[in-house]
Amino acid sequence: MDLGGVFPPIPTPFRGGALDAGALGANCERWMQTGLRGIVVLGSNGEAPLLDDDESDRVIATARARVPDGRLLIAGVARESTVGTVRAATRAAACGADAVLVRTPWFFKALQTREALTRHYTAVADASPVPVLLYNFTALTGVTLPLAAVARLARHPNIVGMKESGSDIAFISALIDETPDDFSVLAGSAPVFYASLVCGAAGGILALACAVPEPCVQLFDMVAAGRLAEARILQRRLTPLARLLTRVHGVPGLKAALDIAGYTGGEPRPPLLPVGPDAVEEIRQAMEALYASV
Amino acid sequence: MDLGGVFPPIPTPFRGGALDAGALGANCERWMQTGLRGIVVLGSNGEAPLLDDDESDRVIATARARVPDGRLLIAGVARESTVGTVRAATRAAACGADAVLVRTPWFFKALQTREALTRHYTAVADASPVPVLLYNFTALTGVTLPLAAVARLARHPNIVGMKESGSDIAFISALIDETPDDFSVLAGSAPVFYASLVCGAAGGILALACAVPEPCVQLFDMVAAGRLAEARILQRRLTPLARLLTRVHGVPGLKAALDIAGYTGGEPRPPLLPVGPDAVEEIRQAMEALYASV
Amino acid sequence: MDLGGVFPPIPTPFRGGALDAGALGANCERWMQTGLRGIVVLGSNGEAPLLDDDESDRVIATARARVPDGRLLIAGVARESTVGTVRAATRAAACGADAVLVRTPWFFKALQTREALTRHYTAVADASPVPVLLYNFTALTGVTLPLAAVARLARHPNIVGMKESGSDIAFISALIDETPDDFSVLAGSAPVFYASLVCGAAGGILALACAVPEPCVQLFDMVAAGRLAEARILQRRLTPLARLLTRVHGVPGLKAALDIAGYTGGEPRPPLLPVGPDAVEEIRQAMEALYASV
Amino acid sequence: MDLGGVFPPIPTPFRGGALDAGALGANCERWMQTGLRGIVVLGSNGEAPLLDDDESDRVIATARARVPDGRLLIAGVARESTVGTVRAATRAAACGADAVLVRTPWFFKALQTREALTRHYTAVADASPVPVLLYNFTALTGVTLPLAAVARLARHPNIVGMKESGSDIAFISALIDETPDDFSVLAGSAPVFYASLVCGAAGGILALACAVPEPCVQLFDMVAAGRLAEARILQRRLTPLARLLTRVHGVPGLKAALDIAGYTGGEPRPPLLPVGPDAVEEIRQAMEALYASV
Repeated sequence: MDLGGVFPPIPTPFRGGALDAGALGANCERWMQTGLRGIVVLGSNGEAPLLDDDESDRVIATARARVPDGRLLIAGVARESTVGTVRAATRAAACGADAVLVRTPWFFKALQTREALTRHYTAVADASPVPVLLYNFTALTGVTLPLAAVARLARHPNIVGMKESGSDIAFISALIDETPDDFSVLAGSAPVFYASLVCGAAGGILALACAVPEPCVQLFDMVAAGRLAEARILQRRLTPLARLLTRVHGVPGLKAALDIAGYTGGEPRPPLLPVGPDAVEEIRQAMEALYASV
Repeated sequence: MDLGGVFPPIPTPFRGGALDAGALGANCERWMQTGLRGIVVLGSNGEAPLLDDDESDRVIATARARVPDGRLLIAGVARESTVGTVRAATRAAACGADAVLVRTPWFFKALQTREALTRHYTAVADASPVPVLLYNFTALTGVTLPLAAVARLARHPNIVGMKESGSDIAFISALIDETPDDFSVLAGSAPVFYASLVCGAAGGILALACAVPEPCVQLFDMVAAGRLAEARILQRRLTPLARLLTRVHGVPGLKAALDIAGYTGGEPRPPLLPVGPDAVEEIRQAMEALYASV
Repeated sequence: MDLGGVFPPIPTPFRGGALDAGALGANCERWMQTGLRGIVVLGSNGEAPLLDDDESDRVIATARARVPDGRLLIAGVARESTVGTVRAATRAAACGADAVLVRTPWFFKALQTREALTRHYTAVADASPVPVLLYNFTALTGVTLPLAAVARLARHPNIVGMKESGSDIAFISALIDETPDDFSVLAGSAPVFYASLVCGAAGGILALACAVPEPCVQLFDMVAAGRLAEARILQRRLTPLARLLTRVHGVPGLKAALDIAGYTGGEPRPPLLPVGPDAVEEIRQAMEALYASV
Repeated sequence: MDLGGVFPPIPTPFRGGALDAGALGANCERWMQTGLRGIVVLGSNGEAPLLDDDESDRVIATARARVPDGRLLIAGVARESTVGTVRAATRAAACGADAVLVRTPWFFKALQTREALTRHYTAVADASPVPVLLYNFTALTGVTLPLAAVARLARHPNIVGMKESGSDIAFISALIDETPDDFSVLAGSAPVFYASLVCGAAGGILALACAVPEPCVQLFDMVAAGRLAEARILQRRLTPLARLLTRVHGVPGLKAALDIAGYTGGEPRPPLLPVGPDAVEEIRQAMEALYASV
């Protein structure tokens, strides 16, 4: 499974509080006209913890119909229990996902020991009909799948890669260094995309790529072609917008950016609140500044 | 609704990985032979985030059948989305819960602003067929319902109290001081039970009370009777065991303590791992030391 | 050494950037006309880390001249090195301090192990000409002298007590429970003073007591007399001002409060900045509200 | 001032508890036979917070005598107060330092606002006889000089660069991107040296370079020459030892490594404790593994 490239972890559009499958399909169609390597649904940016299982199935099936052969559809399937995660992975595969992304369990933080996590991922990978990607999102979960566990899990035949959402390049480098060459480490934070790539990351799953896919793909291509100086400049231009859509405004900001870019973003599901008009304007200006510069 | 007293937030017993409703019912029956004010199901200690909705319904219904009139059955119903929480509260009421306990949403930490949380709880309280208790568990969620939001929500006619799991007595005191007298603040941590009561807490929802209900009830009664010196001594005796069953060993430790005490505890659901034999022995000795002293 | 009572950890007044010994002396004189048990100089509120050794000596000597027999003068002497702390304790004793208060070292956090801290305090207590008080200020230092270390150090003949600045009543209670009866635990945070006293604390070292000494002494006396209901009400009235002078505005806020109360507070030493006029007004109103209620 | 290259932040050797100036001088002489760009004294690794002012002067003077023209001697001069920092910078310059490194104040964390820090550094830079480097060590201080403050301070004519000790490459990149080209950002953590250099860092102040200077210099030279693939491999080989000498064992581990490498490391000053024999052996093996590979 070639995970090299850029994936957008896409938001889930709602209409009147319900999943808007039509808008979701239209968004996917448009993303697939770019150089993106595929699509990630039901990640954090997909508000996955706020969807029920039926909605989750429909999101996967809707995206599947728009992701052509040769591109990848990856579905987030993390649940707190191992049995729930296995069940979600099985459903995702049945709905057409090419691979599943499994964030660490996060509620009982202190109990997510190296051994507990290793058993959890092994059980999920043993049972999943499709390949598994590990996933650390420490800023949200407070849990970190430790390096030694990743090194061991990377040898499992059904575990093919990992998304690391942090920006600690020492840790990202270590993940790359301590895993086999065919294990793909994917950056999960756009401001570290360039640095991660020059350290050997296979690609990225970047919220920013939902709003501005092409420049993200260009950055990937530049590094692949050894055009580092250009890549650094492009990274610098991408970073301000990336921060607005993640650390500063989160999912509601990303949804606003999609609306600005002509996709359907819409409002998040409560208790998440939409961003206010000032934030929308701030995001619009950052998008215009980016497009003026590239 | 008189929330004064001690509630155990009971674990969920499993057998072969499935809910063991028989054991749950037998446990409840025994708890109801003590001076406990009622029972809390589907809290953190109930491994609620690892259960599905059908299992949750069965837990409530099973407990309901064992909690007599005059005692209270409180069910945890927190979900990440407001709509999901409303739905869970409605199901819980239909299954017989007298009140629902609603932990703050916890995944999108930075987005759980005072306004978002106030809207969330207001919507849940507006829709819930039974009274609502607020619930902070900052150590696990990283989210704190702020004092000003509590002060405002406490005036909602369908919000009757709050469980605060922290041990910051300045914050606990402030919750008591800034809410009306008929709003019940319940301690959620046994080592601070005495101090919380002398500061005006109405009672406690204490993991410790699952394993050793009577001494917890005695402590409550002593403070109510103004026998503070005795209460302090009893608190001191309870604290070491309380720490083992929460901070040190968590839910798996609490389940081991239930087994020791003749209830059915059993193993937690993976990825949670049972405690090892050393921990079991440590807990057994702490329980013996407690019973030798009271 | 009877540490029962209330101590103000007094600020250091500056004039034109230099120590204002005259103002310091006048402040002390006035504090000694109240029921305060003594005075603490060179604590965090004394901006001790911003003073040099000569200034520190003069602060102690100035206060010494104003603290009469029967009251206690306690001087903060923490330094990062053991040898520096011993030297500072020796100087403080020579300048007239009755006891020294030794905050944990704080720079090399990860290296302040239980063993390192136990050796440090043992060496300081062995060498200090006057009794030693332990001191945790975790919120500032990131270091916590652990319970087991306190329990052991409390048996040293020259270690007589401890200031704990946190508001975790489980930890404060444990410090009291695990140390001999003649070891005095002093609350270091005014919002937890009542709760600490009913849990067995000997007294408090409270920034609030610099600005409004008498109500703090009254609270102590009420609890000592078993008038708990009154004490709770007084605590509730003290807490809002206490928060403003510590968590909200810190040392600069405390200095502003002293000016309002007719003491000499003045400006802090840079890089600390004085509070602005809005904060001064907020503090003034909180002080007026307090005096109107007691 | 050309800060491009590698600097070791050297430990301070003690003998019988006192500064061992002879050993310090011998160490410096040997470092200056390598390709290091200069020497940093009185940084965190120099145990600066545990030295008094006279010792600090002697450290600078001793090193000055061994650092030839064309190499740079940088001295750490951070104090909690602005006035103390200015005084230390002045003394350092008088003792021969070419530049001073000023870590953020760290005790009153909440009061180190952007404005307070900006005024602090401006005052120090205005008064310092030699150029100033900013310095963030968030892991130890809990304080971060924010990006916007750095961007502004970087325009001060007497502020020439910055050491950033974190490994957040998004932040390191932003520091580089938001400051003028003649402002030198220096990596302060060896595991991120390669990534920082490819993002535009001017060099590094690396504890690792005290123990194994030549490979660190080689890494710098490789990146400068565009030999990135080789540099990545060398980085990977350096990282395990780097972790042992910083995150895992800290200053005591670095001192042990110096002893192994034939420098004089010795024991740290109490309360810091020397590492035990297992750690020494672990470090020795990591050093041997490194030398076997390069």
